Amino acid sequence: MSKNSLVTLLTDFGLSDVYVGVMKGVIATINPALTVIDLTHQIPSQNIAAARFNLMSALPYFPTETVHICVVDPGVGSQRRGIALQLNQAFLVGPDNGLFSGVLPQNSVIKAVELTNLQYWRTASPSQTFHGRDIFAAVGAHLASGVLIEKLGKIIEPESLVELIIEEPLQIENKIIGCIQYIDHFGNLITNIAANQVQGKNWSVVVGKRQILSSQTYSSFPTGEIIALISSEGWVEIAVNGGSAQSQLQLYYGAKVEIILA
Amino acid sequence: MSKNSLVTLLTDFGLSDVYVGVMKGVIATINPALTVIDLTHQIPSQNIAAARFNLMSALPYFPTETVHICVVDPGVGSQRRGIALQLNQAFLVGPDNGLFSGVLPQNSVIKAVELTNLQYWRTASPSQTFHGRDIFAAVGAHLASGVLIEKLGKIIEPESLVELIIEEPLQIENKIIGCIQYIDHFGNLITNIAANQVQGKNWSVVVGKRQILSSQTYSSFPTGEIIALISSEGWVEIAVNGGSAQSQLQLYYGAKVEIILA
Amino acid sequence: MSKNSLVTLLTDFGLSDVYVGVMKGVIATINPALTVIDLTHQIPSQNIAAARFNLMSALPYFPTETVHICVVDPGVGSQRRGIALQLNQAFLVGPDNGLFSGVLPQNSVIKAVELTNLQYWRTASPSQTFHGRDIFAAVGAHLASGVLIEKLGKIIEPESLVELIIEEPLQIENKIIGCIQYIDHFGNLITNIAANQVQGKNWSVVVGKRQILSSQTYSSFPTGEIIALISSEGWVEIAVNGGSAQSQLQLYYGAKVEIILA
Repeated sequence: MSKNSLVTLLTDFGLSDVYVGVMKGVIATINPALTVIDLTHQIPSQNIAAARFNLMSALPYFPTETVHICVVDPGVGSQRRGIALQLNQAFLVGPDNGLFSGVLPQNSVIKAVELTNLQYWRTASPSQTFHGRDIFAAVGAHLASGVLIEKLGKIIEPESLVELIIEEPLQIENKIIGCIQYIDHFGNLITNIAANQVQGKNWSVVVGKRQILSSQTYSSFPTGEIIALISSEGWVEIAVNGGSAQSQLQLYYGAKVEIILA
Repeated sequence: MSKNSLVTLLTDFGLSDVYVGVMKGVIATINPALTVIDLTHQIPSQNIAAARFNLMSALPYFPTETVHICVVDPGVGSQRRGIALQLNQAFLVGPDNGLFSGVLPQNSVIKAVELTNLQYWRTASPSQTFHGRDIFAAVGAHLASGVLIEKLGKIIEPESLVELIIEEPLQIENKIIGCIQYIDHFGNLITNIAANQVQGKNWSVVVGKRQILSSQTYSSFPTGEIIALISSEGWVEIAVNGGSAQSQLQLYYGAKVEIILA
Repeated sequence: MSKNSLVTLLTDFGLSDVYVGVMKGVIATINPALTVIDLTHQIPSQNIAAARFNLMSALPYFPTETVHICVVDPGVGSQRRGIALQLNQAFLVGPDNGLFSGVLPQNSVIKAVELTNLQYWRTASPSQTFHGRDIFAAVGAHLASGVLIEKLGKIIEPESLVELIIEEPLQIENKIIGCIQYIDHFGNLITNIAANQVQGKNWSVVVGKRQILSSQTYSSFPTGEIIALISSEGWVEIAVNGGSAQSQLQLYYGAKVEIILA
């Protein structure tokens, strides 16, 4: 067993079928000593942007040798490449569709490889619809077991990787205009505005005609009150103490959000 | 690695975000040899009573050195204490909000500690909104790895712990008046009336105008029939063979239930 | 610890209660060195046919010594038998209700046992409603830890096992008439028509008045288009590129499907 013995899985496969279990079977068949951790399997179907956000949120909390296998893959079976990346902070395995582009700005790509070496696939005739099982799980398990990344296929240029372009927030004088980039299980609305754009200032959020005051914690305002605060990942977030901001405000992915700096 | 190598997680974080995965990343970073078992992450948001019931149902089935990390924490970021408890049957880590009060009557508290020693946190500047990641996961991992509980902070009196008061069933002659304390995935309605209050007697349940006969098993009455029986955890339960009692009776948490002893 | 150190779980318990966690507690109490993998816990309540299909889909991807504990058990507490089977490809533990009959045609039953030896149960007085915890988890953990299958109870004839009869597709000249046998998380409609009945031929699917062309991959037709292809498990499947065939066609379990071979 190698030291690189931790694997995570991030997919849109849900938990009602055996797809995720099967990926773990493939991994255990290659190396039963690997530890597998689920990041989430409930990315909305084929939503690469949500996958990108969740991977970005999870990566900093794992040991640097962890192999993250990510399969949100609308292009499975097409010409899109399968790739493995070695970053200073992690190994990544999955389709080259922009899913990884959220974590690349904070990390140097040490090596990038296209998965062309069939020897590390589960089978040389993979299903056209389930590369998660036949390619990515197998390749990830081998990588976590100590196979060198350059053995997995041909070296590619990091510049050639597909990028998912996400709109950046715009600051005009004392206003920052951004949007909702993620909505979590609690109905918290997470914007694309980073904490460092507001920290040390007095700030409030405007959505529609409503002004929302900033707070330090969920519980420092009365139950049911809409508040703005810094999320655990360092984004401006709109929340409701003891409730769902999404339900109360009926805002969705991409909705415009304005911050007023005092 | 210590002998205390099993950790469980009980939260209301759901499985659609990476919050649970991140807690496991924090644990694996501290000690990759720990085994982590999910109790459930689908406690209704901020429902301390449901968390209390589920922990009570799970505890007896785990080895006594297990560290149970429980995070249903509406007061995160407020002055509520973070605590660790050593019971004769388990270690517990989480917020001091009554979540643990269901298991305390069956267990002696050997030691109780407030989590004031920052050395065992993930960071000395924890997020105001995610102590599950920054404090409880880290402290639980250290505890399961052999750190002595008294090192985690200052000793507190067990009598000072926050208690969640749950209504007790009331017996008047041959009637026991109780309520629904939990509704499970199958729609089984679990009351707060313990098996030993009815065992060895003929009993039936009355809800509204309907009388429900008691049974030994789900399948001893016809499909679709409403029955009362003893749950696997030792509570009087209302169920439907092959269906959902909750859907058929439209009863909710706290609904009144009467037992007639013959 | 034995070499047989992998256990899987397949149930209809859902993930909102602690039932699955409790089974893992029972397993860890017997042998903390076992690795436990979830196949799925979201089989529709008491749906033996869906359990049968999912087990059939998962089995080929696990090491041959794996112990699969399967608990979809509408007859719990009745006279239905608890069984353990040794196949050439796996060990199976669960109720004798037809759940295992999908994998038996591809496997020889080496040994079949009725679980009559209370010594390997969690308790000699099991709950009438949760054999998953009190019998199957315990027996499976012992089996995966090296206990010989014949020690678990009395040997029974493989011919005596309960079978779940699934309708076979019918071929008349250039038509194959089958049905939907499973609908997955993505809304893909998986028929009971095997790939080898259509491979090497030109084929299309007819449902109602609609003709659906066959494709190699999800992405080779425009987004939103209904296509037919071979599923990752080798069944004719109806899917929508970037959408849900179930939502678009409103077909359910058992719906008739016709294939035209050109």
